[in-house]
Amino acid sequence: MIKVGIVGGTGYTGVELLRLLAAHPDVELGVITSRKEEGMPVANMFPSLRGHVSLAFTAPENARLDQCDVVFFATPHGVAMAQAPALLAAGVKVIDLAADFRIKDTATFEKWYGMAHSAVGLLEEAVYGLPEVNREAIRTARLIGLPGCYPTSMQLGFAPLLAQSGPIVVESALIADCKSGVSGAGRKVEVGSLMAEAADNFKAYGVKGHRHLPETVQGLQAIAGRPIGLTFVPHLVPMIRGIHSTLYAPILPEARETDFQALYTRYYDGEPFVDVMPAGSHPETRSVRGSNTLRIAVHRPGGGDLLVVLVVEDNLVKGAAGQGVQCMNLMFGLAEDAGLRQVPLLP
Amino acid sequence: MIKVGIVGGTGYTGVELLRLLAAHPDVELGVITSRKEEGMPVANMFPSLRGHVSLAFTAPENARLDQCDVVFFATPHGVAMAQAPALLAAGVKVIDLAADFRIKDTATFEKWYGMAHSAVGLLEEAVYGLPEVNREAIRTARLIGLPGCYPTSMQLGFAPLLAQSGPIVVESALIADCKSGVSGAGRKVEVGSLMAEAADNFKAYGVKGHRHLPETVQGLQAIAGRPIGLTFVPHLVPMIRGIHSTLYAPILPEARETDFQALYTRYYDGEPFVDVMPAGSHPETRSVRGSNTLRIAVHRPGGGDLLVVLVVEDNLVKGAAGQGVQCMNLMFGLAEDAGLRQVPLLP
Amino acid sequence: MIKVGIVGGTGYTGVELLRLLAAHPDVELGVITSRKEEGMPVANMFPSLRGHVSLAFTAPENARLDQCDVVFFATPHGVAMAQAPALLAAGVKVIDLAADFRIKDTATFEKWYGMAHSAVGLLEEAVYGLPEVNREAIRTARLIGLPGCYPTSMQLGFAPLLAQSGPIVVESALIADCKSGVSGAGRKVEVGSLMAEAADNFKAYGVKGHRHLPETVQGLQAIAGRPIGLTFVPHLVPMIRGIHSTLYAPILPEARETDFQALYTRYYDGEPFVDVMPAGSHPETRSVRGSNTLRIAVHRPGGGDLLVVLVVEDNLVKGAAGQGVQCMNLMFGLAEDAGLRQVPLLP
Amino acid sequence: MIKVGIVGGTGYTGVELLRLLAAHPDVELGVITSRKEEGMPVANMFPSLRGHVSLAFTAPENARLDQCDVVFFATPHGVAMAQAPALLAAGVKVIDLAADFRIKDTATFEKWYGMAHSAVGLLEEAVYGLPEVNREAIRTARLIGLPGCYPTSMQLGFAPLLAQSGPIVVESALIADCKSGVSGAGRKVEVGSLMAEAADNFKAYGVKGHRHLPETVQGLQAIAGRPIGLTFVPHLVPMIRGIHSTLYAPILPEARETDFQALYTRYYDGEPFVDVMPAGSHPETRSVRGSNTLRIAVHRPGGGDLLVVLVVEDNLVKGAAGQGVQCMNLMFGLAEDAGLRQVPLLP
Repeated sequence: MIKVGIVGGTGYTGVELLRLLAAHPDVELGVITSRKEEGMPVANMFPSLRGHVSLAFTAPENARLDQCDVVFFATPHGVAMAQAPALLAAGVKVIDLAADFRIKDTATFEKWYGMAHSAVGLLEEAVYGLPEVNREAIRTARLIGLPGCYPTSMQLGFAPLLAQSGPIVVESALIADCKSGVSGAGRKVEVGSLMAEAADNFKAYGVKGHRHLPETVQGLQAIAGRPIGLTFVPHLVPMIRGIHSTLYAPILPEARETDFQALYTRYYDGEPFVDVMPAGSHPETRSVRGSNTLRIAVHRPGGGDLLVVLVVEDNLVKGAAGQGVQCMNLMFGLAEDAGLRQVPLLP
Repeated sequence: MIKVGIVGGTGYTGVELLRLLAAHPDVELGVITSRKEEGMPVANMFPSLRGHVSLAFTAPENARLDQCDVVFFATPHGVAMAQAPALLAAGVKVIDLAADFRIKDTATFEKWYGMAHSAVGLLEEAVYGLPEVNREAIRTARLIGLPGCYPTSMQLGFAPLLAQSGPIVVESALIADCKSGVSGAGRKVEVGSLMAEAADNFKAYGVKGHRHLPETVQGLQAIAGRPIGLTFVPHLVPMIRGIHSTLYAPILPEARETDFQALYTRYYDGEPFVDVMPAGSHPETRSVRGSNTLRIAVHRPGGGDLLVVLVVEDNLVKGAAGQGVQCMNLMFGLAEDAGLRQVPLLP
Repeated sequence: MIKVGIVGGTGYTGVELLRLLAAHPDVELGVITSRKEEGMPVANMFPSLRGHVSLAFTAPENARLDQCDVVFFATPHGVAMAQAPALLAAGVKVIDLAADFRIKDTATFEKWYGMAHSAVGLLEEAVYGLPEVNREAIRTARLIGLPGCYPTSMQLGFAPLLAQSGPIVVESALIADCKSGVSGAGRKVEVGSLMAEAADNFKAYGVKGHRHLPETVQGLQAIAGRPIGLTFVPHLVPMIRGIHSTLYAPILPEARETDFQALYTRYYDGEPFVDVMPAGSHPETRSVRGSNTLRIAVHRPGGGDLLVVLVVEDNLVKGAAGQGVQCMNLMFGLAEDAGLRQVPLLP
Repeated sequence: MIKVGIVGGTGYTGVELLRLLAAHPDVELGVITSRKEEGMPVANMFPSLRGHVSLAFTAPENARLDQCDVVFFATPHGVAMAQAPALLAAGVKVIDLAADFRIKDTATFEKWYGMAHSAVGLLEEAVYGLPEVNREAIRTARLIGLPGCYPTSMQLGFAPLLAQSGPIVVESALIADCKSGVSGAGRKVEVGSLMAEAADNFKAYGVKGHRHLPETVQGLQAIAGRPIGLTFVPHLVPMIRGIHSTLYAPILPEARETDFQALYTRYYDGEPFVDVMPAGSHPETRSVRGSNTLRIAVHRPGGGDLLVVLVVEDNLVKGAAGQGVQCMNLMFGLAEDAGLRQVPLLP
């Protein structure tokens, strides 16, 4: 059994980690920390866990995280980079659900996250936890920076196009029109997240600029091996879970004969968590609700020269906690889908 | 492995059965029937099942249901009573999710369901599939009539009060003010079930009379061994899954010293799927979303003489498919919670 | 033109007052205060008001409220009682949407609201702003304490039964099972009001005791002229606006021949904002969305001895701002429905 | 008073017309037809109209539509073209909310709507009812083909860019990523419109091709006087009302110094129903709920060369019934905003 610690279990990615790990056959939940909620049984805060999780929150100073095999950070940005060095030194693997280890360029990180990076020495070692792209590196990693929810959908949606030896789309003119459910904003109390504000409503936000843009550009350029240009427009959907990314890529004249459906199917052949749907499909976010699966459909409206790729994922699973468990499985030599075989909840 | 057949898998209780049975360790899905969708892979209709269920719908006349160990009917009322006799004769157990075998009195059945009963001879043998009340009978049953979704919540909510040797509440004056999500109406196309009609709205319905009233009265009287009187007012909630029943029972003068919290806790001690919450709790429907658990809280507002019992369940799981699987587990000597250990999905 | 001031316009009752008053033919919006938002145009906070309201928030100390004809308080409890005395002395009428002037008994007020009452001398003069019960007193009032949202629906639902010369129902055993949309909690940021918490969910709350209970009991006793007993159980509905109250009253043996439909119709004959629906109706909250109308339906399930009354209102209109405008119309001799003729928004 | 007839008042655009016309100061509702609902008071079907509309449905053969001043068709495609010729001959003006008179090219109409056009002779005369583009023609029109809901938002969003003397954006590479609430699908009963299917979910649809594409291309080319190329991807949002269109237009190198905010502000200067919001705004659909206003915000993410235009409207008002009333006002010389001054309903 792998002994797991969780730092910061009071947000949505925290409770989602607990949901997945409580049912994971190879995991023992060792400790979960929260200074504010010290002593409170986790299941008091999240009654859905009654009968499944008996742990109570431990104050950080009393949590023997160094006795775990792996520690997940489901914390605000900045916490993992403060604690990771000591844990790694103690032989504990670290998986960060926040942004501390996503971005390789510290100037970019500091600009978008408004804080200095305190563990620059670890950035080179840190592996970006997107298994479909980085599987082998993840297997041997000690430190994982998990992708953001939007970046996961954008990178897996564009990857088959960019991973070619030469460009087949106008790589400087990519567009991602993305839509997320409200759990993406976390459990923080903000007026805009109130149900009376967000329900029966739709809006864009962060059009001027969003933290997930530099992360995604970095990832897409790593996949392509070439510079790319991306416009990213996020929107808020009145639903709880789910991301739907509608991706646009102008097809290059020399690539107009490409069979894109075949290209995507081939690229993701054998992947346990990526489902390339039949031509003509319109994936729905609910078709992945509660599961680690990401579904993709490829369209060419009117047979024209603009490729439209539709991608859905559960932002709390494949976009966060589930991807973390997938990485953990790889790091510990387990079946990649251990504890991740949930059938999506529909309706 | 138990070989399972499903008749009528195109509604919400059908897809929920598939979600549960596909992940059940002791079950092999043998056949699923639909005349209208013959030949279509089930996962084409419900993309959430892609990768989990590979069956296609079979026309009823080609479905070798008699080679199954057990057949579930997730059909409109009237179908199971037509087919059950032949299946039972072939040695196949039958679990009906519709109303055909719920009501012992055929006149009552015919009045509320508007059809003659064609298998009256089986009514005496049929066991009402509420394990917390009928566990031993279910173990040896060949034919199960599963309770309705509302009746499950009402009966398990009132049972501890009525199962006493003598009355402790005014048993002629029980009230059940119940609220259900829209999946309770099934996947039938009706104007009132459109999202533009049902969302951002709340209403009562069927106040004059509802089919679940006679079923519940029959069940409560069986528990009490005495006549009872119940007023049942159902309401429609703009959510997908979940039932919340608010139950009212006037406490008899001689029972005013009763510790009702203790009474409920004791009554459900050891039950795998009934959670009596701590005093003062307000159970939420989402705390059981996707799971077979039913949660109960007991209140006595202002310390007065009216007992208020709050009950939540997922209408598609404990109120339908999950309860069916629980019965199947009992009938085949499996662990009662086999295939039913899902952690609720929250948020 | 009546010159109107608003204290505290940043919550939902405040923006609703602005929506109604901006379109009121006899009203001039004079001033709206907020210390925190001083100088910000109201329409920047609520873009729905762009083109309709050009006012900016004024700091309280600069707001010449004494030059208004009437001032509405859409503030937290406690603000109106601090400012009302000076305004009244300056000849300004006051309408409080909070609880400061609802409850006549200061001990009761102080117990439930956790603060001392600082304007006890005004309590006798203050008129409870429920026009269907107190119309004549409202016409000549200087100071109005507007009813809470739940109390409006409960009082208007029970009133026809209690306003009889002698009891016709068991007045000690009334039950109100009430359901409210999330805007009832206001625009405060609290975890339970987040969309990811409240959507696709249903729960009761405050079963132990709720502030609206003593207010409602006081009002019902005033209507009946006799003591009454009420159990009140509020619930939270995943919708934005609307209250649905399901009221239960046991019919006394001697009143069993009463035609309750006729009794209600007669009682509310001529009322501009109370709609007694035809027998057998199930009023929906959306049928009053955005309007000052309250709809009632009367049922007697199974022809039995328990009367069930269904009441719907828009909690922000008839339950708050609209009722305030209705009172203002009466106080200034305008048509009672001036500015309140909006057709409900459906779907 | 203008005497108005409505053909087909049982759908959402019908009830919305009734909401607006019932409160219109210059309108008398003369007749509303429905064969199926003959004799039923309209307010029985839509209780929101109780107290506002006393009309009952009339069978078409008994409806003296020829005695009206204007007749609205809120019917399925094909009805208006059958009845318009006789009405026009009788001197009655006609406003069609369906597609019969939107598309000038009959081959295109017949391809997308699957029916022959039976009133080809009227197509030249019919005016496309988009006042911001065709105001003068509408004033003198006898026959109006009202734009679709999506096309209204796309055309008003792109118009300022295309109405220039020469191109300033790549007019062959326009993209419209549009999102609509469920009322856009009408009141037809279809599985995909059930609340249990559409709530807590997000998906694209019709990516292969949608009827609103040729209509929009025709309109945009009329505005530009040049050919344009558009990719249109519609999505379904789990909300009742509202359309949000996110429009993308690559800026031509020679236009990079353009002040697009100023260009939009100038273009819509004086328009009563188009609100160009301040730079940096993110319009929300709820900010126009129930009103005829359309709001626009213009962005240039990262200061780059892709213009992003955000447009919101209420699909049932500016996207249908409200736009019809706006046209009627123009046709009869009324104030353009008569009966259309509703403040949006927020929250």
